[in-house]
Amino acid sequence: MVRIGLLTSGGDCQALNATMRGVVKGLANNVDQLEVYGFMNGYKGLIYGDYRMLTSQDFSGILTRGGTILGTSRQPFKLMRTPDENGLDKVDAMKQNYYKLRLDCLVILGGNGTQKTANLLREEGLNIIHLPKTIDNDISGTDMTFGFYSAVNIAAEAIDCIHTTASSHNRVFIVEVMGHKVGWLTLYAGIASGADVILIPEIPYDIDKIISAINKRKERGSGFTILAVAEGAIPKKIAALPKKEMKKEMAKILEKYPSISYKIAEDIQKETGLEIRVTVPGHTQRGGSPCPYDRILSTRIGSEAAKLILEKNFGYMVALVNGKIKKVPLEDVAGKLKGVDPECQEIADAKRMGISFGD
Amino acid sequence: MVRIGLLTSGGDCQALNATMRGVVKGLANNVDQLEVYGFMNGYKGLIYGDYRMLTSQDFSGILTRGGTILGTSRQPFKLMRTPDENGLDKVDAMKQNYYKLRLDCLVILGGNGTQKTANLLREEGLNIIHLPKTIDNDISGTDMTFGFYSAVNIAAEAIDCIHTTASSHNRVFIVEVMGHKVGWLTLYAGIASGADVILIPEIPYDIDKIISAINKRKERGSGFTILAVAEGAIPKKIAALPKKEMKKEMAKILEKYPSISYKIAEDIQKETGLEIRVTVPGHTQRGGSPCPYDRILSTRIGSEAAKLILEKNFGYMVALVNGKIKKVPLEDVAGKLKGVDPECQEIADAKRMGISFGD
Amino acid sequence: MVRIGLLTSGGDCQALNATMRGVVKGLANNVDQLEVYGFMNGYKGLIYGDYRMLTSQDFSGILTRGGTILGTSRQPFKLMRTPDENGLDKVDAMKQNYYKLRLDCLVILGGNGTQKTANLLREEGLNIIHLPKTIDNDISGTDMTFGFYSAVNIAAEAIDCIHTTASSHNRVFIVEVMGHKVGWLTLYAGIASGADVILIPEIPYDIDKIISAINKRKERGSGFTILAVAEGAIPKKIAALPKKEMKKEMAKILEKYPSISYKIAEDIQKETGLEIRVTVPGHTQRGGSPCPYDRILSTRIGSEAAKLILEKNFGYMVALVNGKIKKVPLEDVAGKLKGVDPECQEIADAKRMGISFGD
Amino acid sequence: MVRIGLLTSGGDCQALNATMRGVVKGLANNVDQLEVYGFMNGYKGLIYGDYRMLTSQDFSGILTRGGTILGTSRQPFKLMRTPDENGLDKVDAMKQNYYKLRLDCLVILGGNGTQKTANLLREEGLNIIHLPKTIDNDISGTDMTFGFYSAVNIAAEAIDCIHTTASSHNRVFIVEVMGHKVGWLTLYAGIASGADVILIPEIPYDIDKIISAINKRKERGSGFTILAVAEGAIPKKIAALPKKEMKKEMAKILEKYPSISYKIAEDIQKETGLEIRVTVPGHTQRGGSPCPYDRILSTRIGSEAAKLILEKNFGYMVALVNGKIKKVPLEDVAGKLKGVDPECQEIADAKRMGISFGD
Repeated sequence: MVRIGLLTSGGDCQALNATMRGVVKGLANNVDQLEVYGFMNGYKGLIYGDYRMLTSQDFSGILTRGGTILGTSRQPFKLMRTPDENGLDKVDAMKQNYYKLRLDCLVILGGNGTQKTANLLREEGLNIIHLPKTIDNDISGTDMTFGFYSAVNIAAEAIDCIHTTASSHNRVFIVEVMGHKVGWLTLYAGIASGADVILIPEIPYDIDKIISAINKRKERGSGFTILAVAEGAIPKKIAALPKKEMKKEMAKILEKYPSISYKIAEDIQKETGLEIRVTVPGHTQRGGSPCPYDRILSTRIGSEAAKLILEKNFGYMVALVNGKIKKVPLEDVAGKLKGVDPECQEIADAKRMGISFGD
Repeated sequence: MVRIGLLTSGGDCQALNATMRGVVKGLANNVDQLEVYGFMNGYKGLIYGDYRMLTSQDFSGILTRGGTILGTSRQPFKLMRTPDENGLDKVDAMKQNYYKLRLDCLVILGGNGTQKTANLLREEGLNIIHLPKTIDNDISGTDMTFGFYSAVNIAAEAIDCIHTTASSHNRVFIVEVMGHKVGWLTLYAGIASGADVILIPEIPYDIDKIISAINKRKERGSGFTILAVAEGAIPKKIAALPKKEMKKEMAKILEKYPSISYKIAEDIQKETGLEIRVTVPGHTQRGGSPCPYDRILSTRIGSEAAKLILEKNFGYMVALVNGKIKKVPLEDVAGKLKGVDPECQEIADAKRMGISFGD
Repeated sequence: MVRIGLLTSGGDCQALNATMRGVVKGLANNVDQLEVYGFMNGYKGLIYGDYRMLTSQDFSGILTRGGTILGTSRQPFKLMRTPDENGLDKVDAMKQNYYKLRLDCLVILGGNGTQKTANLLREEGLNIIHLPKTIDNDISGTDMTFGFYSAVNIAAEAIDCIHTTASSHNRVFIVEVMGHKVGWLTLYAGIASGADVILIPEIPYDIDKIISAINKRKERGSGFTILAVAEGAIPKKIAALPKKEMKKEMAKILEKYPSISYKIAEDIQKETGLEIRVTVPGHTQRGGSPCPYDRILSTRIGSEAAKLILEKNFGYMVALVNGKIKKVPLEDVAGKLKGVDPECQEIADAKRMGISFGD
Repeated sequence: MVRIGLLTSGGDCQALNATMRGVVKGLANNVDQLEVYGFMNGYKGLIYGDYRMLTSQDFSGILTRGGTILGTSRQPFKLMRTPDENGLDKVDAMKQNYYKLRLDCLVILGGNGTQKTANLLREEGLNIIHLPKTIDNDISGTDMTFGFYSAVNIAAEAIDCIHTTASSHNRVFIVEVMGHKVGWLTLYAGIASGADVILIPEIPYDIDKIISAINKRKERGSGFTILAVAEGAIPKKIAALPKKEMKKEMAKILEKYPSISYKIAEDIQKETGLEIRVTVPGHTQRGGSPCPYDRILSTRIGSEAAKLILEKNFGYMVALVNGKIKKVPLEDVAGKLKGVDPECQEIADAKRMGISFGD
């Protein structure tokens, strides 16, 4: 007999359902009796005891379904130690619900913030397994997070569509890709779709370099240019400021423009007279059916999580390392962000082909 | 021996290449000698004599390719009678190039504006065939334009993606769909993807009705609401103003917000406290590979255009009327916009199911 | 208060769920109390009283889901009057279950066979609405059936994939498309994907004409040829025989080959020495998520069915006629097959472009 | 100044064009003068001096295009040393053409067989770079081949479509996946699409185990079962025979049935009375646009090949090893097949969840 709790927390992404299906099928096939408690809307459900008992039936047919059958919400880690408006201690409340249901383990699907709270609960003595989900692929200790390639597909398809329009009209287009702090999604979607300029937070850009890339293309006979721009792209001059001032300057920009892409568009337009169009696929990048790559990854992560539970091996993140699913101690990775190294091979490969990073 | 000119004009859309392939294959298979002159970048190429001679080879393999191998540009009809910066009379120039190349016919692919110029050239004595392309489906005299269903697919897929995210987060989402003057694309994409609220230019909206639709859903247990909003959506109060003032008021809004969707989001947020997200698929709706529906429609339109040319039947738009491809005199339809009738069956069907149009 | 029964019968197709959602949302939004009885696995559920009571919740989120939440089965019309193995009169049993549940109406989703039984139940005095589903688009009285365009998409995508391989290898490929009696699906998928030869049941083929089409392409420099072949394609010589002998001859072929495509492949190979590959997408053509076209059509058909029920207008098929949803008396159309007219415009359009029909 | 030859050989797959684009853009951006000779239809073009000079323009816009702009053909390695029908020594001929064009390097895209000939040419003193393409992912020395994930996507989508139909009809379906000798594609597509039974060449199957898996599902309330079967699946009894007899027995089966799937279907049907349907996506798995994963992989492989050429580093396969692109000496890997280890983690993960491998 095994009792587990399940929750999905943080920004929505694809393959959450597929992962939970992996966990539950992996357990149900190996124990006589399994009780699954699904906490609703992330940590909120665990704090306030809002849960549903789930059966195998609930996990049937959800391999390909986007979203999460449990709902999700953002519960900032830094507020976890702050009592709620009614004075409730959230950590205590989570522990009480865990013990009241006599759970053998709590399986938590989420990104960086979620992971920190998961580690906190581990430190508080709960049996925790963390499964790394995010379209940002920014979790330390794993080569890949589920959700990432599904988001790459959506962003790349958007740029593909823009490609035919840009080339017909000889226009400059900006496609804004998700990613406030890290550029993996923009980098991969940009390479996948043949973007000419890729701007990511890790490589602050110089607007003149972008303009010269556009002009160089024109000289070679390509009248159009496509820029894949991460939400968190940042001008070199601002990035060079002390952190506080940097934040202030970026805030000024975001007061004036819906996002950085619109500023870049205006800057290019002013300098070149070209008409620039901005496209923002936005939250579509988090939705829809997971791609086969993610379904395989998340199924395997789920199944390996079941193995850990069966072995009573707790306190781990289930990670992909060199093509194998491995367990990584939560304490080793919690809170560590994995950004793009500007010297990484992917960027060298892209630069060799003439893709500009605005640096 | 047949000599034809081809040009694509106006906003880019899918199936332009597929249509031209239909024309050329339909002719090449039926005449001993065919000369095809492709004018580059819309009417610009015809005015300035910028063309390429094309062979069957150029049309091979382009059935599924988005964009246009000829390039396109927007050349406003109302400026056609105005000489260019060098004093060149554009209409004269177009006629001269037509006669110089001894064309039997000029095949023009484009939307409403393009059609007006096509009709002008017809009045000037040229042999013209107009093929109705636009993602807006707003051309009078045809039930359907090619490009429309491909755009519906893209917009509907975007809303599908948003659906999984909205339901996981219990959020209100706005997806902005192309269409400044007519709402066909928003109406069809909205129905196709299960939008809860659909706002189109032809039915001015009352923000209170939208808010009460959101609240009604909440009461029934649906924490999320999806709004499909046309670019040209307009508040009832503003729509009721005299045209001049109306334009002034709308201009004010578009000075303050990137588009009407952002204003609607803010208005809902102010009233309800809900967090609203806006997604703008933008020009992706014009790009990518045409869907099979459009490939069939455009292939048939192209092939029927070839038939008209072989029969020396000129001065027509090639249209889809009750499932059959028919020829429609250009003079009967040029310049007539086909908007959504608020009393049409599609809207009645949608309203019966509880979809709100904000009216 | 309204009580309806729902059932889906015959071969599976896309948009069955979308259609039922349309019916139920159209009713639920307009009556105070609605009871929905879903009969399981087609007429079987109605005969044996196997049903589930369904709530609005059951129809939420199923717009994009393939298959049918009610299951389906094939129950031949000609056996409806034959008692089952236990001596049960099936028609009586269906009537009894209808009356026992005091249904106001029975909504039946299905194709030609299903429609005949639906009409029989109407003749027996039940209130019936029939909704035309089939990937074959062969139902008389409606311009379009839901499921058709989704199947066109899948078949066309398969041919698209084959296209790149065929052209890389300079090979002849046969893609077998569903359709035993009618050729709509093959015709539309073939045009949509640029097939060079299209073989349909309505136009018996001459193998020599096919071979000469392949050779003609070779002479013009195209080393590959793609044939879209309907399951029900038939050689001219056999089609000319009296019906009984024709069936015998076709049966002989299907004893020797998995399907007609393999015979055509062998015949071409023998004559030309070319290596021919056969691909059979098979039941994939019935599955997966309905395309936006089908979601719109089926939603509208469902909503209009709700209207008929609210108006107590029974005994109709809900059809698409010239772009409008209309009611068509079941007695006028039941059992009438709508095949492809060899003289129809689509075929003339295709032939003009050089597509061979093997005739 | 750099002169390279390019050729694509063996079975077609996705991302061949994307890879060649990577090589050419990687070089063109770094040398003053680049000459690219494209040999037509694999080694055939190299043997008979059939080539085209290619410019950057030829590689523009082909990132997303399936097939190969150079054409391909199968030229068995074991016949490379056998003179052709005119007595021409093929290896000599290839060398002569290489030297006549004064190539700095020959870049060869292909699978296992292609690789062996590439290594032979290396032994003969030519500068060779081999790029590992195949939908089978069976090349030793690289974690991944381009083409594989695109094929996984197509096979998984086919099974997805079958899923909705199978569940609506409560039927047993077999989807036959490509792979004569290795099971990677079937294994990954099967896991990605939730197949219940996966049969691969590396794990000979016992028909009774398959039937008991079907029955077990029935007992648990799942009326349908989906089998993903590799082309090269083999019954345990036959696999146990000495190789010669094994081949004879398999040949007997393939005389009687179009493929092993049809035999498995018949065997299940005989034993259980169930109706089994077989679907064969076939060559669609090799075609169509490469998925973003493959576009990134092949772009990087192409760009790293350019790096090797610039560094005059020859005699390597460009491989993906632990997420990095690396060079692997051709002599170390040529001719080594990489099959699925029945004890690998993926299979353990799948078995834990109750997926049967028929063993």
